[in-house]
Amino acid sequence: MTDDLEIDPASKPDAPPRHLAPGDVGLVAPRDFVCHQPFTFKTGQVIPGFTLRYETYGELNATRDNAILVCHALSGDHHCAGWHSPNDRKPGWWNNLIGPGQAVDTRRFFVICANVLGGCQGSTGPSSINPETGRPYGILFPFVTILDMVRAQKRLLDHLGVAELHGIIGGSMGGMQALLFAIEHPHFIRRVLAMATTGRESAQAIAFNEVGRQAIMQDPAWNRGDYPKDGGPRVGLAIARMMAHITYVSDASMDRKFGRRKKEGAHTDAYTFDVQFEVEGYLRHQGQSFINRFDANSYLYITRALDQFDLAHAYGSLEQAFAPVEAETLAIGFTSDWLFPPEQNRQLALAMLRAGKRASYAELSTDLGHDSFLLESEELYTLIRGFLEREKSYVFDYAI
Amino acid sequence: MTDDLEIDPASKPDAPPRHLAPGDVGLVAPRDFVCHQPFTFKTGQVIPGFTLRYETYGELNATRDNAILVCHALSGDHHCAGWHSPNDRKPGWWNNLIGPGQAVDTRRFFVICANVLGGCQGSTGPSSINPETGRPYGILFPFVTILDMVRAQKRLLDHLGVAELHGIIGGSMGGMQALLFAIEHPHFIRRVLAMATTGRESAQAIAFNEVGRQAIMQDPAWNRGDYPKDGGPRVGLAIARMMAHITYVSDASMDRKFGRRKKEGAHTDAYTFDVQFEVEGYLRHQGQSFINRFDANSYLYITRALDQFDLAHAYGSLEQAFAPVEAETLAIGFTSDWLFPPEQNRQLALAMLRAGKRASYAELSTDLGHDSFLLESEELYTLIRGFLEREKSYVFDYAI
Repeated sequence: MTDDLEIDPASKPDAPPRHLAPGDVGLVAPRDFVCHQPFTFKTGQVIPGFTLRYETYGELNATRDNAILVCHALSGDHHCAGWHSPNDRKPGWWNNLIGPGQAVDTRRFFVICANVLGGCQGSTGPSSINPETGRPYGILFPFVTILDMVRAQKRLLDHLGVAELHGIIGGSMGGMQALLFAIEHPHFIRRVLAMATTGRESAQAIAFNEVGRQAIMQDPAWNRGDYPKDGGPRVGLAIARMMAHITYVSDASMDRKFGRRKKEGAHTDAYTFDVQFEVEGYLRHQGQSFINRFDANSYLYITRALDQFDLAHAYGSLEQAFAPVEAETLAIGFTSDWLFPPEQNRQLALAMLRAGKRASYAELSTDLGHDSFLLESEELYTLIRGFLEREKSYVFDYAI
Repeated sequence: MTDDLEIDPASKPDAPPRHLAPGDVGLVAPRDFVCHQPFTFKTGQVIPGFTLRYETYGELNATRDNAILVCHALSGDHHCAGWHSPNDRKPGWWNNLIGPGQAVDTRRFFVICANVLGGCQGSTGPSSINPETGRPYGILFPFVTILDMVRAQKRLLDHLGVAELHGIIGGSMGGMQALLFAIEHPHFIRRVLAMATTGRESAQAIAFNEVGRQAIMQDPAWNRGDYPKDGGPRVGLAIARMMAHITYVSDASMDRKFGRRKKEGAHTDAYTFDVQFEVEGYLRHQGQSFINRFDANSYLYITRALDQFDLAHAYGSLEQAFAPVEAETLAIGFTSDWLFPPEQNRQLALAMLRAGKRASYAELSTDLGHDSFLLESEELYTLIRGFLEREKSYVFDYAI
């Protein structure tokens, strides 16, 4: 997920504050769910408790069944809508989707989003203090899987008194969580919306993650995961991010956005290893801004969780994995997504159908690549709103 | 270009020596062309002379017009056919294509291949000794362009007494050289065969090169290009190579070759940041073997030359670039090549046709990605042989 699809920070002086705009959830504040029960990871390792940082928008209804859980992607966090302060440069990462009257309508739904277990935005992860040592866990933190992320979020939902999820939504790694949640807690979930995701990563996706991990782990400042909070393998993490960013977009969108344009001031025929093409400056910015907000060990852990995710392997087949599911599923693929291509999303819906479930697939033509799920698109909003708000008698009519 | 398409090193003990196999050029030895005339780069910088290491196969005929120049890709070299010793693990990188009776028939043609200027396999480049300082040039070496590579090779051909090239062949960066040679020395070249190449890199291709360069230049051992011959930014260069390797193949070929198979001995559900998937071990091997044969500064220079190559920009348009060309051109694209996609190759042939030249385009269905031009393929061999051996009255009949 990129930092790229951002709101223009230069709002007009006489414009009303952006957080008061219609359709915006406004000012929001994260909260911490501190769970004091021990947590057993899939690996068998145990931590004495954990924290999930989360945000909610809208109100839980009396029957406690209007909640929608939003699951974030690799580099995302709990702040998916609204503003932390009127002066924020950017709102939450899915602000265009979530709000009063929006596709995920907070007048109707109680929306919850938590930073994943293993993350670094306030939830317990490798950068948290290990109570046994008084120092950050580093690579002593247990290996995290998508299943662990799901189970930790289930505890949060229980804590919040959610009786049943009206829906669970996620793109990329968020989609993996959504699918696994519906498998592991079938009675708890009514609608699954998984976008730009996959039942398992291809060799190419694993390969890109491995290059990123090597860039981090070969950086001497990684020091086997033991580094100060503001130090660490910043060079390696920036390299990993620059490369990963290319996989989140597309050849077409990069050509449209940058083409071969030279950086302002650069002589068109100058020769240099400094930034010469605009796309180079843009990538370096992506790398630099990432190292200021993300922990390198979390990057290792979460990419490994992505690599390990394999529904067919874990349950025997995709159909067997989906056998217990009671939710209806909508999978959405994006034509230009070459990280988790449309076909992998379509296969999810097909396997649901083969397992006798209500499922459908929609494919959107975009040129933004994997990050298309963050796209401002009326077509996407209409699909999502329709899926979340329609009656159960709805006939699945998207082409597969 | 990968190290991947290699001959099985385990030849049977009773098998005849591989270098004596029919169709093999046999044992070959590189030679050095030492040019004592000053060389002026496109940037205006001058070096007092240069060396090109090269190999030849076959014999120059009496009319000195049966030569074929083979141009190599980013990580290639002059050793494109035959064996340096009977015990070599691998032959030259295009050994499957070049030899007596092969598609590039050394009974008929005099084949020449030189390591490019700026390279690190014996030709003058950043790792060569700067006569002014007695130490390696490092980043004091002039910026190299594809045009400089072409001009240096032209001097070699003059030295060898070649009156006219029957053909010039190259894939990837080799294709760029082939096209530019035909533009710059139109009377000298009769047939141009450019494969898996482009008239200019897309933003995505520049972006990948930039990540590789950053991995090298941010490695402290790079030391602004000043490092000992056996040291230098080995970590950064390996990272760059691992990433670049992914762009040379394809999702489909990686899935076919590795899929999600775990490394032998790895427990299928083990959790580790060490090699767990076969594809990870394979990539690490690609990185490690590369740092033992390639110079990091050369990698910077040559990737920059690739980024800078832009025929339309340099000549006003592709059609104007091709206006002087007298050669016939065959462009070949490969369906799975996502680095220099088929369409970019097709556009080259179309621009040649629009410029009134004899040109054609062939597209081969492969799943090997960019490296498909190194594929062992009868279809490819037939195309190449046909293009090189047919009479001039040949009718271009490949579909565009």
